[in-house]
Amino acid sequence: MYFASDNAGPAHPKVMEAMVAANEGYAMGYGADPIMDAVRAQVREVFEAPEAAVYLVINGTAANSVLLSAMTKPWETVFCTDCAHIHEDECNAPEFYTGAKLTLVPTADGKMTADDLRAKIIGEENRGVHGPQRGPVSITQVTEKGTIYTLDEIGALTATAQEFGMQTHLDGARFTNALVALGCSAADMTWKAGVDTVSFGGTKNGLLGVEACVIFNPDIAWEFELRRKRGGHLLSKHRYLSAQMQAYLTDNLWLDMARAANARCMQLADGLRQHNTAKMLFEPQANMIFFEIPRSEHKRMLDAGAVYYVMNGDPAVGDPDARLTGRLVCDWSMTESGVSQFLDLLHG
Amino acid sequence: MYFASDNAGPAHPKVMEAMVAANEGYAMGYGADPIMDAVRAQVREVFEAPEAAVYLVINGTAANSVLLSAMTKPWETVFCTDCAHIHEDECNAPEFYTGAKLTLVPTADGKMTADDLRAKIIGEENRGVHGPQRGPVSITQVTEKGTIYTLDEIGALTATAQEFGMQTHLDGARFTNALVALGCSAADMTWKAGVDTVSFGGTKNGLLGVEACVIFNPDIAWEFELRRKRGGHLLSKHRYLSAQMQAYLTDNLWLDMARAANARCMQLADGLRQHNTAKMLFEPQANMIFFEIPRSEHKRMLDAGAVYYVMNGDPAVGDPDARLTGRLVCDWSMTESGVSQFLDLLHG
Amino acid sequence: MYFASDNAGPAHPKVMEAMVAANEGYAMGYGADPIMDAVRAQVREVFEAPEAAVYLVINGTAANSVLLSAMTKPWETVFCTDCAHIHEDECNAPEFYTGAKLTLVPTADGKMTADDLRAKIIGEENRGVHGPQRGPVSITQVTEKGTIYTLDEIGALTATAQEFGMQTHLDGARFTNALVALGCSAADMTWKAGVDTVSFGGTKNGLLGVEACVIFNPDIAWEFELRRKRGGHLLSKHRYLSAQMQAYLTDNLWLDMARAANARCMQLADGLRQHNTAKMLFEPQANMIFFEIPRSEHKRMLDAGAVYYVMNGDPAVGDPDARLTGRLVCDWSMTESGVSQFLDLLHG
Amino acid sequence: MYFASDNAGPAHPKVMEAMVAANEGYAMGYGADPIMDAVRAQVREVFEAPEAAVYLVINGTAANSVLLSAMTKPWETVFCTDCAHIHEDECNAPEFYTGAKLTLVPTADGKMTADDLRAKIIGEENRGVHGPQRGPVSITQVTEKGTIYTLDEIGALTATAQEFGMQTHLDGARFTNALVALGCSAADMTWKAGVDTVSFGGTKNGLLGVEACVIFNPDIAWEFELRRKRGGHLLSKHRYLSAQMQAYLTDNLWLDMARAANARCMQLADGLRQHNTAKMLFEPQANMIFFEIPRSEHKRMLDAGAVYYVMNGDPAVGDPDARLTGRLVCDWSMTESGVSQFLDLLHG
Repeated sequence: MYFASDNAGPAHPKVMEAMVAANEGYAMGYGADPIMDAVRAQVREVFEAPEAAVYLVINGTAANSVLLSAMTKPWETVFCTDCAHIHEDECNAPEFYTGAKLTLVPTADGKMTADDLRAKIIGEENRGVHGPQRGPVSITQVTEKGTIYTLDEIGALTATAQEFGMQTHLDGARFTNALVALGCSAADMTWKAGVDTVSFGGTKNGLLGVEACVIFNPDIAWEFELRRKRGGHLLSKHRYLSAQMQAYLTDNLWLDMARAANARCMQLADGLRQHNTAKMLFEPQANMIFFEIPRSEHKRMLDAGAVYYVMNGDPAVGDPDARLTGRLVCDWSMTESGVSQFLDLLHG
Repeated sequence: MYFASDNAGPAHPKVMEAMVAANEGYAMGYGADPIMDAVRAQVREVFEAPEAAVYLVINGTAANSVLLSAMTKPWETVFCTDCAHIHEDECNAPEFYTGAKLTLVPTADGKMTADDLRAKIIGEENRGVHGPQRGPVSITQVTEKGTIYTLDEIGALTATAQEFGMQTHLDGARFTNALVALGCSAADMTWKAGVDTVSFGGTKNGLLGVEACVIFNPDIAWEFELRRKRGGHLLSKHRYLSAQMQAYLTDNLWLDMARAANARCMQLADGLRQHNTAKMLFEPQANMIFFEIPRSEHKRMLDAGAVYYVMNGDPAVGDPDARLTGRLVCDWSMTESGVSQFLDLLHG
Repeated sequence: MYFASDNAGPAHPKVMEAMVAANEGYAMGYGADPIMDAVRAQVREVFEAPEAAVYLVINGTAANSVLLSAMTKPWETVFCTDCAHIHEDECNAPEFYTGAKLTLVPTADGKMTADDLRAKIIGEENRGVHGPQRGPVSITQVTEKGTIYTLDEIGALTATAQEFGMQTHLDGARFTNALVALGCSAADMTWKAGVDTVSFGGTKNGLLGVEACVIFNPDIAWEFELRRKRGGHLLSKHRYLSAQMQAYLTDNLWLDMARAANARCMQLADGLRQHNTAKMLFEPQANMIFFEIPRSEHKRMLDAGAVYYVMNGDPAVGDPDARLTGRLVCDWSMTESGVSQFLDLLHG
Repeated sequence: MYFASDNAGPAHPKVMEAMVAANEGYAMGYGADPIMDAVRAQVREVFEAPEAAVYLVINGTAANSVLLSAMTKPWETVFCTDCAHIHEDECNAPEFYTGAKLTLVPTADGKMTADDLRAKIIGEENRGVHGPQRGPVSITQVTEKGTIYTLDEIGALTATAQEFGMQTHLDGARFTNALVALGCSAADMTWKAGVDTVSFGGTKNGLLGVEACVIFNPDIAWEFELRRKRGGHLLSKHRYLSAQMQAYLTDNLWLDMARAANARCMQLADGLRQHNTAKMLFEPQANMIFFEIPRSEHKRMLDAGAVYYVMNGDPAVGDPDARLTGRLVCDWSMTESGVSQFLDLLHG
């Protein structure tokens, strides 16, 4: 009953096998390993982007920060939602790498609208040299609330950005969970919808710790490489990143794992819908649910061994009837019976 | 015949086994995994430092940069040798993380002397607010030239630093190679000799990619944690770092691997001494050799399949009799026969 | 009829006289001039703070940025209003100097409330190492909307900050305009109300370009000096800053100039109240007014030679009946007849 | 007998008059004042560069740091001499603004040679992404040792830079002292010799505190403006900078002041040559002399009221016969009799 994070589950056995297989003999370091050549080709094929620059880093903070730093001048501001990971969960890493600031677009459900984005963009104008200048937009798919932008919504956001000469970055820590939910291609969800760069996550979807940085316009590729190195994010024994990503993209493993995680989430959602008191805050679309039950119920669940975060209060201290929000995240390894066990416990 | 870098060899099978073993079920992320508790205890025991703060990062650039940033103010200067990795090979990462600059102490053999250090420290004085202020000293053990500081030499450097109220960082990318060469304890080579923080390397000695940051005075531990996160160097699935370091420190694996690498290096050195023309630039003490032979000889070796770096010229272009310097590095997996093959080839 | 900014008027003749008088013979540079000794004593007396550290810089951006950088760690966030100068008008200088980010407290009238501040402070908690940590609060007096915090309101904000172990900076670009409006002492409005550091403005109140940085706890004084130098804000011929500030604080010149500016603003406000259509957005308390009239009226005023900013639209383009906001700022040199001329024109 | 610094003398009365004259009525701020239009034209005429971008800042540290930051990427290194002001006297400001590092070219007399520069440039190559990349060259004219590059020497340095695709910055804190010594035009000494940007100093030559930043290729002009603002170096009441520079360039005042300073320096040099013991370290070419006399002689001079820096020891403590180096700098206001008084005292 572990629903705390898709960061907490194991890597897929096929990924570990690939790691072991890669551990033979000598290999050039720093991304010059032959497996990386294969990975580059795989990523380009998946994204239908034969010119794309492709790099691997260890986690989402590094992917987001280094990509954004190659897209943003230090006197600019990056537009993102008020619940974006780059704003809330990276301890100023984006500011550190870019030297810039973030402008927060408010959201109801984790998704910014093109109108709200436009209002914020316009709000940053008219101050000439005095105010921050407009930098890129960064959107998150799956959002921090478990919701998903449609392709049209992404297109509307990137079109708004382009109208002001701005680029768009996509934080895809849960990229594949969105992809299988939408049933579209990686190209559809990115460059065909106007996205310029992608943090293409693997860590939350069955890898040990790898994200691919995909840059559709390779003009900034060399700058990216230098910034990655300057941030300490170029690995010497790079083959162990390459091997993970190679296994990920082989035989649809990435899609299968995301489908499994999403399916468990839908199972959870169905169960929650049948519950008298539980209320889901957003319609779950991928592998993450926010739901409200009384504090006393949270306490009972957690005491019985369910593991998940309660977001807005201590489940053990306070009015037992107060409704608190819990977050449930399913990873690829979550079992149907694990979910059933959780639901049985909830239904008491 | 792969002597290009100790970054290029495989990880030890026991390390891979530990990775696989760690890949079971759910584990808390971000360093809260139970394996990390064990690692912390192991490192403290190895260093005889029960209060030390211990953190894991993915490579030496991260270890050096985050440690130095927690020890240095942005208006200070870090004293290091003119061939230090932090100066030559980290693409300004130390400057990025610290905001400070580096003052280079010249060296003949990779080792700075206390007198030369003192001269540079004094050279930075007397400018009040106008000049950079004195920050920490950073020394490298094994040095970039394959030489090793004696314990007395380390003590003299740290004493010089302390005389001016400065701290000392030790870049130990090849820490264990030095340790087994000196036959001393980790405590002897660090805090007992006046060292304040250590980048305790594993990557170049049989791990996939882990360095421990060891901080003897835990006052800066929380700052280190925040700076690590802000640099994007806190891993979510941290257990895969922990597992590597746990295997490393279990049953003397770390020492055995370093001894093996050093032994192969001594075998190489013996062979080079018997060669008519080859000249070693420094007396090899760990697992790295710099040697001079004519360009034509380098070309012959490389064409025949030997792999190593020629440092100061293109082996294929130029006066065939000109003497160029090659660098040979042995990793833990280098075999006796691999070295013999190289020497046989050299001796023609 | 120049109401565009209190930055646009001349310096007071007594200030120019002091500049000329200071221009005799040789003087030590970099703040070691004898006039600075007198200024330090004057500022300490004015603030009833005999231990305070006192420094001069050229403008408000420098004062705010260097002060905040000495109070903030790069992994923290500074709490300020959503219309603060440090957020909107300094082109990321605070982020550049601190390495940190800003958290915006929404305001109706330029003044943050203690409750809103508390809500934002609490909103930044609970993420441990992942989120930005709490840095100082920065409040602005006179606010960007021309309103003034009462002493109780300042006290409530600093008490809230202190409750969370945070310090408070006061951006006093229009410090003296607030002081004479409140009729309190500089000590009352700062350290007696819990403020830790002050950007004590002179530029907008009759100087050529000087702000004093006042630090009540001198523990960070040396750090401030180094950060000022590192930002390029230590002047060699410092006496010309000192002379301005000396004249400013002599014979109540600073108070007289602020009183004059405020009086002209009150004259303006009285006139606006008698106007049929004009509506003031906030009750003017110092030397700045925001007022609404139809676009066509703005156009008429500007065409006739009135100089001021229209904030939210082009006065020449658009629906002539749409109401736009104008900003009127009075400096010390504005004359009663200048204001009358403006009002006569407005009343048409 | 004040020879401590050309920073310590007064501004020229004509400059003060210009300040007073500029202090009339309202003027647009932030460089939009009409005087700045005139200054821009003057500087372009002086430099025969009708397209040049021209900006004013308050001091040399700001001029150098902002200019270099617009020419340098954070992963690059700036080539300068080991005694450059940007290295020794700006408390890491260049590193702060650029994010980059400095590579020091050793010099005997303050002037780097093209060969030494080339050796350092080549020394930074061959490390690919691992090492710092090549950024601009920064040369200083007049050098820190009082020597002057010939036009051919400047041309050789910029040609070397261009050969590697690098640009050249000229730190001209004492630009005019060099210009009148060489008897060439400002264009000859800069863009005609291959220089790309200039810190054109005024502070050390009779102004209160202004340096012009001259950028021959205006492509980076807007970036410069944003970086200047972000550093807090855009002045609101900019007219007081403009007025100084306008007076400076009117009726040859800048040339006259530099000639006066240089003439006094030559008078000093002549006197020193006639002294038994005094030895000048470098042949003085502008307004600065380094000379050696015994410690006891320094002490005698200083006790008698001469003011100058002794560079390498305490004049009051130590072997009275030890020879120490003193630095003498003449500013525009130094009188012939002031120099005579010093020489008489020296000759005893």
